[in-house]
Amino acid sequence: CVASASYNFVFFHVNSFTVQLLYFLLVSLFGFFVLKALKPRTAATFRPASLDLFFTSVSAATVSSMSTVEMEVFSNAQLLVMTVLMLVGGEVFTSMVGLNFESSKLLTPWKTEGNSSPLRGIEMAIVATPELQKTQSEIDLEAQRFLNHSAVKLLGLLVATYFFALNLGGVALVIWYMSAVPSARDVLEKKGLKTITFALFTVVSSFSNCGFVPTNENMIVFRKNSGLLLLILPQLLLGNTLFPPVLRLLVWALGKFVRRSEFDYLLNNTREIGYLHLLPAAHSLLLAATVFAFTVVQMVLFCSMEWNSEALSGMNGFQKFVGSLFQVVNSRHAGESIVNLSVIAPAVLTLFVVMMYLPPYTSFLPAKYAAEESSAGGQKTRGRQILENVLFSQLGYLVIFVIAICITERKSLIEDPLNFNVLNIVIEVVSAYGNVGFSTGYSCESRLNQEGSCVDKWYGFAGKWSGQGKIILIVVMFFGRLKKFNMNGGRAWKLQ
Amino acid sequence: CVASASYNFVFFHVNSFTVQLLYFLLVSLFGFFVLKALKPRTAATFRPASLDLFFTSVSAATVSSMSTVEMEVFSNAQLLVMTVLMLVGGEVFTSMVGLNFESSKLLTPWKTEGNSSPLRGIEMAIVATPELQKTQSEIDLEAQRFLNHSAVKLLGLLVATYFFALNLGGVALVIWYMSAVPSARDVLEKKGLKTITFALFTVVSSFSNCGFVPTNENMIVFRKNSGLLLLILPQLLLGNTLFPPVLRLLVWALGKFVRRSEFDYLLNNTREIGYLHLLPAAHSLLLAATVFAFTVVQMVLFCSMEWNSEALSGMNGFQKFVGSLFQVVNSRHAGESIVNLSVIAPAVLTLFVVMMYLPPYTSFLPAKYAAEESSAGGQKTRGRQILENVLFSQLGYLVIFVIAICITERKSLIEDPLNFNVLNIVIEVVSAYGNVGFSTGYSCESRLNQEGSCVDKWYGFAGKWSGQGKIILIVVMFFGRLKKFNMNGGRAWKLQ
Ligand SMILES: [K+]
Ligand SMILES: [K+]
Repeated sequence: CVASASYNFVFFHVNSFTVQLLYFLLVSLFGFFVLKALKPRTAATFRPASLDLFFTSVSAATVSSMSTVEMEVFSNAQLLVMTVLMLVGGEVFTSMVGLNFESSKLLTPWKTEGNSSPLRGIEMAIVATPELQKTQSEIDLEAQRFLNHSAVKLLGLLVATYFFALNLGGVALVIWYMSAVPSARDVLEKKGLKTITFALFTVVSSFSNCGFVPTNENMIVFRKNSGLLLLILPQLLLGNTLFPPVLRLLVWALGKFVRRSEFDYLLNNTREIGYLHLLPAAHSLLLAATVFAFTVVQMVLFCSMEWNSEALSGMNGFQKFVGSLFQVVNSRHAGESIVNLSVIAPAVLTLFVVMMYLPPYTSFLPAKYAAEESSAGGQKTRGRQILENVLFSQLGYLVIFVIAICITERKSLIEDPLNFNVLNIVIEVVSAYGNVGFSTGYSCESRLNQEGSCVDKWYGFAGKWSGQGKIILIVVMFFGRLKKFNMNGGRAWKLQ
Repeated sequence: CVASASYNFVFFHVNSFTVQLLYFLLVSLFGFFVLKALKPRTAATFRPASLDLFFTSVSAATVSSMSTVEMEVFSNAQLLVMTVLMLVGGEVFTSMVGLNFESSKLLTPWKTEGNSSPLRGIEMAIVATPELQKTQSEIDLEAQRFLNHSAVKLLGLLVATYFFALNLGGVALVIWYMSAVPSARDVLEKKGLKTITFALFTVVSSFSNCGFVPTNENMIVFRKNSGLLLLILPQLLLGNTLFPPVLRLLVWALGKFVRRSEFDYLLNNTREIGYLHLLPAAHSLLLAATVFAFTVVQMVLFCSMEWNSEALSGMNGFQKFVGSLFQVVNSRHAGESIVNLSVIAPAVLTLFVVMMYLPPYTSFLPAKYAAEESSAGGQKTRGRQILENVLFSQLGYLVIFVIAICITERKSLIEDPLNFNVLNIVIEVVSAYGNVGFSTGYSCESRLNQEGSCVDKWYGFAGKWSGQGKIILIVVMFFGRLKKFNMNGGRAWKLQ
């Protein structure tokens, strides 16, 4: 029985991982072929290389927004394809698919580790029971199973409504903003971008926390349009770090209006539901508090280091405040930017590296609350132990990736040390791992040796890397998008 | 009873921490005043500032070998004072004091967390028992207590013998080497260093893994003296990473010759003994294997990146091999150097950062072996939980230190970006935290703005920092020396 349970664990765990890996691979490949087939806007003068198109497709599908091509290279049709990639790559969408898939199967394969549902075991027990007469406890169990099923179904409906309402509402608001504010509209006109494409692309990108914007300069060009930033800010938060607290709030509020037992069940049985984004009450509150605290800490450092700097020059106090808030919220994990990161103080960049590294649902969670959620501490299966022994920790892998890129780019590290330095590489790798999209870019002016032609481009630092370096970064983006499967890695290493 | 146990835990834990913190503070202060009172060798032309002398004293006492003063500034008397500081600051010495202190008290206050001895609880129970008649089990317990006491006493004697034998043997070998090899002797003569001082200083420094060498250039000046490097190499390993496996081997071997029950007791009751450096058999083997694996990984990367580089130029194949081995062993954690780290490839430096970060007894230790050692998993006291909630993880603190130094040195980070970059600051901070002593130094040639006078110096990068930056680094050295007390920090943060 232990061996079978262990087999089951490994099977479900590996299976779920394989399903998701295949999903992102196939979406990326599909996106690549379509992007390749469509003509870029600059077809007459410049066509992106295949590797860069695949990089872009992976970056959109894994909601990373790392770039090796300028955004204005892409035609309207290509932008719409990328919108689809971002739409289906976002965490809310994929979890929604999983949830509906789960409710239709009455099984719970889209489970997170350590949340192994007692119901599944019970179900197996029922199947295994040879007698046909049902005892009272079996009837109770079936009733609970039915309740679980309908609660999961309701939750799926709720998440879908949340997803579509926020995306469509956001698009409507951005279109309204563009029609009302000439300074923003002029930018789109000058760049030949359609308002509807811009609104759709930007809102989907923001809600899924991808962070691509159809303009070359990302949000720098709108840094004084505080209204637009304030419209997008809620999308960033509601599609990512604040999704669980707000989802719980919605379930609670709906339960007040509509008296159905499913809502109570959802609020009180988060572990049985096994939906990663529905957390117990205390955890939800602590998560929201953590998001708030991180934002405040970043704001204090960012404003104190940058308020009078080159990065925020030409903005008034209100614009600086909104812009700073927008910038620091984007470090977790959309990666849109209103400043050029290469001129930001190293102290701020170091803090950004930490913020980009921390997964969305990082939370201050004292042991007594954590204990409520996972009781699996002592019951490790053999399969899980073997996995734990083989896997490194997240940081271990990140260090390996950084060292690998220091090797592939070793020539540039010597010849062009102000652009190619370890901090910039670490920012790029952690940004890809966190699916953020921040990048210091590449500055022709910073080259020590000014020989040879060099034109400043609006794509990320990785755009100047070798093909090998870009391939490693593609791997990092996939790794980052699936990081939840390796959160227990490195347990077999004891530091003392 | 729970409250009292919790109080006891916090009391003993905090108490042990306070004792050790006070110990290192007092030793450092004592060293500072004596160093200040003694004349430097360069008294006529240059006297180090008080902050730099305190920095040096802390660096010696915490066996860090970070430097802000060139070593040849110090007179013979000052070198001998530093020898004493390194002698009493090393881990083997402090643990030896703790062990003898423990055996004399029959209590076990020098305990590591999670190794709470069952004997202490029993002892308390005995004290609390009002009846005077002893039951059979009480008599057994007393016999075991007596065995424990005499085993700890024997262990203390063994560690002391180990300590003195290796230090004295090392000194004798280095003196012999200097008398036999003219090229090495010439260096000392040219620098006006006494052979006996050099031997004593270097061996004590190497065994305690401090890493100071009386020469300005550290071991770079002896990089072709492979014999000297090979004499020092065992000191580095036996005084640090390989101490536990070798100690266990000694206990085992002595037990074969001298048939005393204490040896068996020591081998089979590592948890009851509670001596951090005596580990169970499997753990000892895995620790040795980990040290070996880390060395091999570092050798492969170092040799493949540096074999034909500037750093190893002018050396033959054998010298390069021995030198590389010496260099990579020193990243854990002596910090002596045969190359100038500022010309080493960033890939290697990044790996060095990881190696410096990992505590000496980092080991691959699968769950089934780890379980043997700590059974305290589920029995967290309230006091411990509170501590866990308040403390950050080690990496959390390191990031805070790095950001703080990026703030204190913000002007230099802008004006002198090739010397003052985040990688060099991270190396300096992690080196101080790991009590290593590696530093990239400061290169006048790397300044972008060559105005103003600048003379290359043989001290660490921190020597060019502001006073505030140096003070932060002093804090980091203390924090690093006492890191074992914070190994459970950051548990209240959940990453998902
Ligand atoms: K992103
Ligand atoms: K050291």
